[in-house]
Amino acid sequence: MNVLIVYAHPEPRSLNGALRDFAVEHLEAAGHAVQVTDLYAMNWKAAFDANDVTGRAPDARFDPSLDSKHAFAAGTQSEDIAREQEKLKWADAVILQFPLWWFSMPAIMKGWVERVYAYGFAYGVGEHSETRWGNRYGEGSLAGKRAMLIVTAGGWESHYSPRGINGPIDDVLFPIQHGILYYPGFDVLPPFVIYRTGKMNDARFDETRAALGKRLDALWTAQPIPFRRQNAGDYEIPALTLKEEIVPGTVGFAAHLAHA
Amino acid sequence: MNVLIVYAHPEPRSLNGALRDFAVEHLEAAGHAVQVTDLYAMNWKAAFDANDVTGRAPDARFDPSLDSKHAFAAGTQSEDIAREQEKLKWADAVILQFPLWWFSMPAIMKGWVERVYAYGFAYGVGEHSETRWGNRYGEGSLAGKRAMLIVTAGGWESHYSPRGINGPIDDVLFPIQHGILYYPGFDVLPPFVIYRTGKMNDARFDETRAALGKRLDALWTAQPIPFRRQNAGDYEIPALTLKEEIVPGTVGFAAHLAHA
Repeated sequence: MNVLIVYAHPEPRSLNGALRDFAVEHLEAAGHAVQVTDLYAMNWKAAFDANDVTGRAPDARFDPSLDSKHAFAAGTQSEDIAREQEKLKWADAVILQFPLWWFSMPAIMKGWVERVYAYGFAYGVGEHSETRWGNRYGEGSLAGKRAMLIVTAGGWESHYSPRGINGPIDDVLFPIQHGILYYPGFDVLPPFVIYRTGKMNDARFDETRAALGKRLDALWTAQPIPFRRQNAGDYEIPALTLKEEIVPGTVGFAAHLAHA
Repeated sequence: MNVLIVYAHPEPRSLNGALRDFAVEHLEAAGHAVQVTDLYAMNWKAAFDANDVTGRAPDARFDPSLDSKHAFAAGTQSEDIAREQEKLKWADAVILQFPLWWFSMPAIMKGWVERVYAYGFAYGVGEHSETRWGNRYGEGSLAGKRAMLIVTAGGWESHYSPRGINGPIDDVLFPIQHGILYYPGFDVLPPFVIYRTGKMNDARFDETRAALGKRLDALWTAQPIPFRRQNAGDYEIPALTLKEEIVPGTVGFAAHLAHA
């Protein structure tokens, strides 16, 4: 199988760097083909702007959404964007690996999403009707592929527990796992999270690596997070609220899990 | 009073640009001093990396957290970072204005947070003891200042309602409002959110501007979101989980509101 690792850490001699190297070796040893998008190493342009569309009139008004649509359709996207889209099409599984900075992915990776997820590629696809609101949340251009996060955090696991002050890790990652990965169609596996990275030592690093190896071995067999499909009957169209009979009274991110 | 608007949109001739101009005029007409950090216009460097510390040994290992700490303490931060920190100190209120892209702020603004929020400035301050876990979540360098988000979204309000598919807007914004603003001490006002921006017209724009004007007039009097203070008795230290007697059984982001 083909695996794309999108990786964001500024220092290769870091815990993230070591785990990235381990993941590549482990997957290749299992016979998979691996590509790495090393965002810092390639000096990835983070800010999505008018320069991402070639051949524009220089003083034309820039509409992030519509310009993205036209550029994707016309083949006038920046080359670096088109290249990443090809990698996504090639991949059977995509891993996003990053340190949790201010409760989200690093800016450079957010900029990868904003620029590579073009209108017509990752959103704005499919028909809108009385029963469908486009191909998204379980359907879309990336359907059939799997995705998983590898995340490091300085805080303790309890700080991210159901009643922890930072919020439950599943909720902290929901905008990424549901909003960025499930949205264009990925089946999203539970995240691999390493807490309290300041307290890493050789024994813990060995354990972490072994645990990650098992997760990578299960990339094709693990059960995805059971997010609800948008167009499969659980939601009113076009309000996109859960139908009354679906987990009545439940609100918030967790309501969008089918076992809620 | 002094107001800093941190603004991220690539096109000045946009809804965001028009609302930014309106906010500046409105605040100045009320006698306030306003500074705007226009991230796209200043070509803000989004990726936090070793170049943000001057005078480093070129092949030294970069530790994002420790290098930030040393640079802040030693005055060897990049000038653009130090300048933004001065603006934050100057401000009585800070407004972050941005389009919601992939359920968070644009990468360029995330990079402003990552670079400007230095260790020793926005985190890693205060003592750790049996009753305190640093100055954060309600205390910190930016305590006494107010903050508010102005956010535009293409989706419908119902999509961000308590049972909407994107998740409730308060939860979508929690990592920013609680994790980025409340964390270093800001009192966070309810956000000003404009939905379905593709359906803007003159009448709606006038209404939106009027509503924003009222919110700006109430910048000093509106009730902040009642997030729980970390060190005021609601949390176990150091686990940082809510004490058993606090909203028993409640989990998730909403548990961290004092009226929950």
